[in-house]
Amino acid sequence: MKERIYPPQTPLRRILLVIAYDGTSYCGWQVQPNGISIQSVLQAAIEDLVGEKIMLTGASRTDSGVHALGQVAVFDTHMTIPQERFAMALNQRLPEDIVIQDSVEVPLDFHPRYQKTSKTYEYRILNRRKALPCQRLYSYFVPQRLDLEKMRQAADYICGTHDFKNFASTKTSVKDTVRTVYSLELIREGDMITLRITGDGFLYNMVRIIAGALLKVGFGQKPPQYIREVLESKERIIPGPTAPAHGLTLMEIRYEEGYGR
Amino acid sequence: MKERIYPPQTPLRRILLVIAYDGTSYCGWQVQPNGISIQSVLQAAIEDLVGEKIMLTGASRTDSGVHALGQVAVFDTHMTIPQERFAMALNQRLPEDIVIQDSVEVPLDFHPRYQKTSKTYEYRILNRRKALPCQRLYSYFVPQRLDLEKMRQAADYICGTHDFKNFASTKTSVKDTVRTVYSLELIREGDMITLRITGDGFLYNMVRIIAGALLKVGFGQKPPQYIREVLESKERIIPGPTAPAHGLTLMEIRYEEGYGR
Repeated sequence: MKERIYPPQTPLRRILLVIAYDGTSYCGWQVQPNGISIQSVLQAAIEDLVGEKIMLTGASRTDSGVHALGQVAVFDTHMTIPQERFAMALNQRLPEDIVIQDSVEVPLDFHPRYQKTSKTYEYRILNRRKALPCQRLYSYFVPQRLDLEKMRQAADYICGTHDFKNFASTKTSVKDTVRTVYSLELIREGDMITLRITGDGFLYNMVRIIAGALLKVGFGQKPPQYIREVLESKERIIPGPTAPAHGLTLMEIRYEEGYGR
Repeated sequence: MKERIYPPQTPLRRILLVIAYDGTSYCGWQVQPNGISIQSVLQAAIEDLVGEKIMLTGASRTDSGVHALGQVAVFDTHMTIPQERFAMALNQRLPEDIVIQDSVEVPLDFHPRYQKTSKTYEYRILNRRKALPCQRLYSYFVPQRLDLEKMRQAADYICGTHDFKNFASTKTSVKDTVRTVYSLELIREGDMITLRITGDGFLYNMVRIIAGALLKVGFGQKPPQYIREVLESKERIIPGPTAPAHGLTLMEIRYEEGYGR
């Protein structure tokens, strides 16, 4: 990093980035002891541009292999270029698998995790007899027959405000496990089934656990009502195997203030 | 290869494979001095399965970075397993970026390059302001505005039987450069423009040169009639830059006999 000296009167600005990435080659969003994180690659590119040490705060800590179209992160800088120029200047410093979609200045008290949002994820299932090589990194290949109608019935139980404790990884440290799912659609286009879910927030691994549970229903191993049982149970039930990370994409994060994709 | 001894009376069979691959990591279909070819990886897997030295003959020599959903290739073997089992047995021996979609026995005089066919290719153009990381290996990113209506007018000149000599790489060794294009569609879905072309055969780099020429029209650098001029010209005209390989996918090859995808 080539350090720059900004005049003392230069005001601090908070810049919000909307980020798309292919998670295949990374250990996830967050800095980890082993592997390269998306956050650390971004942080290095930003510091190279602005010439200051910065802290990058992301809205969502995506796991290794998870992709994003609309991740959001903020950092503070004294740099004075127009807000939309950060995207272009950073893309020149980033690898091809991380692309800033948009950059905008936000108030200094805007926090990407504490502000009210709606988040949308997509989980893609490739449902055909033989795998497709060009889809292997962006969808979960399921050769078995799936009963989409039953999966849709099961999905209806997920919608609404529930305690999703049984749909969170046991590794979660969060106390409040109540979340609201605004919508959960299952869209079939050819061989591809897309599970599109929007909510006010998601627990650790929640979308992948929901995808795994819906697949269990799709295989006929459990009836759709099983989802309600798991939601209503006071005990800890593991509703099925967690679907693999590479099928998941963080599509968008919308803030009440209008920021985001 | 562990060699197998087949009884002398075992008849020779010709097996046709329908193959999908992600061309990103390969130097193309054909064996090359540098890099690993798809043909050589397949050949090794087949020899490992059948326990005989085999020769694999492909229908189409795709370049480095070009993908396939329905490449066709044949080989001869004495192995006696049911025809459809070759696909599964080979997939267990292949990397994830090469997947056999189908295997079927064909007459011993069936040749994948000399039989009458129709071939379909797709060239994908991602047309939006910012690149998308998960599409970077499977589409050509074009941020400039494109006039799709003019591109469609230009595409109409391509359809039919023409001498496509100006739409072939100068590296081609073929004498007869007359080909018939049955259809050429430009389909827009969101930010993705797919150029879908079907014909009785294509010259070396022909689809990529057509894509490059149509882009020139889309940018407004040439009028749609330019395509007709290039087709009718007696002189050698290079109609535009060859569009990059990674946007191209060999979708299907259909034989009169009914084989293929």
